[in-house]
Amino acid sequence: MRVDGPAVMRRIARVVENGRRHYEDLFADDAGVAIVREPARYVDGRLVVDGTPLVPVGTPTVLAVGARPAVAPLPGVGEVPFVTSDALLRMEDLPSSLAIVGGGPIAVEFAQALRRLDVPVTMVIRAELPLRGEEPEAREAVARILRADGVRLVTSAHGIGLERSPHGVRVRFDGGSAEAAHVLLATGREPTIADLDPAAAGIELEDGGARVSPTLATTAPGVFAIGDAIAGDHRRYQFTHVATHEGPQVAENALRGAAHAPGYAAMPRVTFTDPEVAAVGLTEAEAREHGHDVHVELKLIRQLGKARAVGETEGFVKLVLDRGTQRLLGATVFCAHGGDMLAELTIPLHVHDGDLAPVLATTFAHPTLSEGIKVAVRNALGRLA
Amino acid sequence: MRVDGPAVMRRIARVVENGRRHYEDLFADDAGVAIVREPARYVDGRLVVDGTPLVPVGTPTVLAVGARPAVAPLPGVGEVPFVTSDALLRMEDLPSSLAIVGGGPIAVEFAQALRRLDVPVTMVIRAELPLRGEEPEAREAVARILRADGVRLVTSAHGIGLERSPHGVRVRFDGGSAEAAHVLLATGREPTIADLDPAAAGIELEDGGARVSPTLATTAPGVFAIGDAIAGDHRRYQFTHVATHEGPQVAENALRGAAHAPGYAAMPRVTFTDPEVAAVGLTEAEAREHGHDVHVELKLIRQLGKARAVGETEGFVKLVLDRGTQRLLGATVFCAHGGDMLAELTIPLHVHDGDLAPVLATTFAHPTLSEGIKVAVRNALGRLA
Repeated sequence: MRVDGPAVMRRIARVVENGRRHYEDLFADDAGVAIVREPARYVDGRLVVDGTPLVPVGTPTVLAVGARPAVAPLPGVGEVPFVTSDALLRMEDLPSSLAIVGGGPIAVEFAQALRRLDVPVTMVIRAELPLRGEEPEAREAVARILRADGVRLVTSAHGIGLERSPHGVRVRFDGGSAEAAHVLLATGREPTIADLDPAAAGIELEDGGARVSPTLATTAPGVFAIGDAIAGDHRRYQFTHVATHEGPQVAENALRGAAHAPGYAAMPRVTFTDPEVAAVGLTEAEAREHGHDVHVELKLIRQLGKARAVGETEGFVKLVLDRGTQRLLGATVFCAHGGDMLAELTIPLHVHDGDLAPVLATTFAHPTLSEGIKVAVRNALGRLA
Repeated sequence: MRVDGPAVMRRIARVVENGRRHYEDLFADDAGVAIVREPARYVDGRLVVDGTPLVPVGTPTVLAVGARPAVAPLPGVGEVPFVTSDALLRMEDLPSSLAIVGGGPIAVEFAQALRRLDVPVTMVIRAELPLRGEEPEAREAVARILRADGVRLVTSAHGIGLERSPHGVRVRFDGGSAEAAHVLLATGREPTIADLDPAAAGIELEDGGARVSPTLATTAPGVFAIGDAIAGDHRRYQFTHVATHEGPQVAENALRGAAHAPGYAAMPRVTFTDPEVAAVGLTEAEAREHGHDVHVELKLIRQLGKARAVGETEGFVKLVLDRGTQRLLGATVFCAHGGDMLAELTIPLHVHDGDLAPVLATTFAHPTLSEGIKVAVRNALGRLA
């Protein structure tokens, strides 16, 4: 199959643009919303756009200004052309070859997608496996699948640096190198809030993001921050749905003096590889670090009739429970469209504090992949009873 | 694309056989299970195989003998060769063309699957739309999708009859006919329990299935029935997961004198078309018949970012709520792998009696198709508040 690169990139641009327009249309329907497209910054405590104050001083404010790709200070990074994930999505054609530095969700998503679009891909990561923070079984499987897709995956790479090469860029590392037409730096995302000159409003930053209270108040009265604008540990939660979770609560804090403190214990995280790595709560290692006496339950997807019928046999459901309380602490659903099923475990984790009785009591349709969740729950509770 | 029919049929046979063996292996691992492969029947109140009593009189018994395709008494049905769904799955090659009589889940699943395998398919149904009992929006969409796939769908057909034709079979109906090499009769499934000669044990049948009490006791002491062996209204629930739901409860009834009465209010049903029609609880029409003041919430899948990104934009989430209690009465998730997401609504319907607060409180991952469920819930509760 020959891939029509420009057509692929046009489709991406169209989907992104349609998504943007969809949300703008939602706002346009609401008479109370004004959209201002110019950059804003704080001057003397007031948010100013193009020299004009945007709102009266003291107007309750929620800063949801997001993040942009961070550029790691690799040797040579200043001397070579590189792309970030944002820039790669705006290219007019697929790269003729790609090196990727980084092993997080964005890195593995791009590596697999571009490789399956027939782009030669080399991925160079410092860790032994991609997707730090996820379950080792998922990390090993993703590495295996990327390699099966044809990605050259270089792990445990030390001394990573960049230099120009005759046909593009060379990624050097101790003991080897990789050449490609382009290099994607997928080394995290950093808050853009500093662009607002927040100090001029008394908004303190920390590690590049807003320092916030549990109710997401910044250090400036009446100013709140949500999503990727926030500093520190919150960076574990760089997901759109986290800001969506925070937004309504913080709006009430800002406008009505409420004191909602958004919780993060049941915040889902999904890496959109094929299959998807969908997870919520603590990993097994995190649960042990927290001192739990841990029971682990693993159900392989290939043992499900639906998986064998549709040929989507890769993956597993992994549950991490506390032996004493028999409650769920965390889960990974690693299988085709796992992200769509994760809420079946997020609901008991969030609403029932990990009590799995509601899942056990519920009949799951047969034959489905979601039966893997039900069977894992039944097996775990049966073994702990 | 040329379809290799024999290869397709060999794969089906392999998947079916592997599934059967998987479950047999589960039993083989358990020393307490004996598998007897010969037909059994009741003689003088005892279950007898090949002339030998199988178990002592009075042994607690659960009859889970299932169903087989029912052959509707259509004019001409005795004079033509026809296949049932079971027989079609055992064919060595795909039919060169197929007529289907019937419009239920099995009929539409086979129609779409075979058409997509390039088999010319005509489907003849008595109703105005396929999938009686499901929401009209889903039924209309399935009809549209079948036609878009190239299925000739004849609806509101009266006077359906069969006759031989030079190249196979002709399905006649008032005002027209359809010829095909084979005809699939997909006109329901009937219990096989009569083969056991149940009257010889005092087990009364009704409409071909076992008459049971709410605890699924038959009219013979110590004998219970589950799944498709049961008569009457239970035939709405001809699903494997229903027997799985009943089995453990009835085993306790039989062995320990428990009195579990399985409930069916939150029994999922899935039709495995593309997209899947996944539903639970009451349809809008059923809710109105039950006297509810109904609120309907519809969220279109194409409004979701993930749907547009992956190109799976067909479908909707439909919620049926009682206006007064604001509780969920039923739901249809009609979208790609909808069956895998249905438990996100089955849990609140079954465990919380339709209270949707747990779903509203839970953060769903973005971007996913399951967000359609979350958004529909949020919109419904927002409008009813």
